[in-house]
Amino acid sequence: MAFQIKSIETLINEFRKLPGIGPKSARRIVFYLLKQSKNEIKSFADALIEMKEKVKLCKNCFNLSEDDECFFCKDGSRNKASICIVEKPSDVLVIEATGEYKGLYHVLGGLLSPIENIGPDELKIPKLIERINNLKTSEIIIALNPTVEGDSTATYLSKNLKPLGVKITKLASGLPVGGDIEYADQMTIGRAISGRREI
Amino acid sequence: MAFQIKSIETLINEFRKLPGIGPKSARRIVFYLLKQSKNEIKSFADALIEMKEKVKLCKNCFNLSEDDECFFCKDGSRNKASICIVEKPSDVLVIEATGEYKGLYHVLGGLLSPIENIGPDELKIPKLIERINNLKTSEIIIALNPTVEGDSTATYLSKNLKPLGVKITKLASGLPVGGDIEYADQMTIGRAISGRREI
Repeated sequence: MAFQIKSIETLINEFRKLPGIGPKSARRIVFYLLKQSKNEIKSFADALIEMKEKVKLCKNCFNLSEDDECFFCKDGSRNKASICIVEKPSDVLVIEATGEYKGLYHVLGGLLSPIENIGPDELKIPKLIERINNLKTSEIIIALNPTVEGDSTATYLSKNLKPLGVKITKLASGLPVGGDIEYADQMTIGRAISGRREI
Repeated sequence: MAFQIKSIETLINEFRKLPGIGPKSARRIVFYLLKQSKNEIKSFADALIEMKEKVKLCKNCFNLSEDDECFFCKDGSRNKASICIVEKPSDVLVIEATGEYKGLYHVLGGLLSPIENIGPDELKIPKLIERINNLKTSEIIIALNPTVEGDSTATYLSKNLKPLGVKITKLASGLPVGGDIEYADQMTIGRAISGRREI
């Protein structure tokens, strides 16, 4: 539905580029914004620019940060003997939200993928090895998705980090809490059986 | 889930204010934007500011426009003898999309509501009467929602515009195309019966 007003069309198109926003939602958002004050629109635009200008990657763990070192690397109370390896910055959030982990992180920024030409260097693995040596890390927790790429990256990591003398663990794979055995897939049940624990 | 990065939190909060965007969508959008180039973010921010600066209301019909007169008021090929009355600018779009209407519009900007203190002056009705006199309008089409407020506004309009000697019509109310009589509500069926047409 053409609107005949260039600046509105432009903004609708900008919103349509965002994940999960279709043409109708974009239009609804723009009509909402039209009713907002100039100040409110300005603070939205400023927030966009500021986020892009300020946020960079932590020089140690490649998590997002406004400073050279991220919140976790700077925090003296974290357990420096443990590093949790995740794929992307949002995974850090998910693990933090559990409150179960108090160590450091290392954000790979992707998973090994020969097809997409993503090798160990792209995943900051040399820097990880340097950190393990400097911090005298005793445990590495691999928190990657239980997918083909995640599992093969985990295998690669464990093979290359074991010679450094660290204990390497991986998140348990099995039935999700509140899940139903009847509806779980075979692979998940298979892993739940092989990873069974005494109670 | 706190992110510990101020500029990211601020932007997530800005997105959460938008209609239909919850905390998870806002976070997903911000993570998507973090991966975009500085130029892309800038053009998004510029589009916001520009829309707010440029868009105003048409001096005749109160539709949205970047100029003093909107696309429809400026278009010489539109039928100037007919005015379609709608509640809000987005309704203009919906009617245009049908391709059934070639006249002018008048955007009320709301519906009569004594409780919210919205009277005829707030709805630009004096300006509408002025336009009807100047344009020598022959037909007024009332395209308001078939709700209590919409119907009472339509009744008010018809009572006040009839003395001007114009023909006043209202959008037909009845079963939606593709709808099912079994699932239609009593009011809708009632209106479909009273508004029945010979075939």
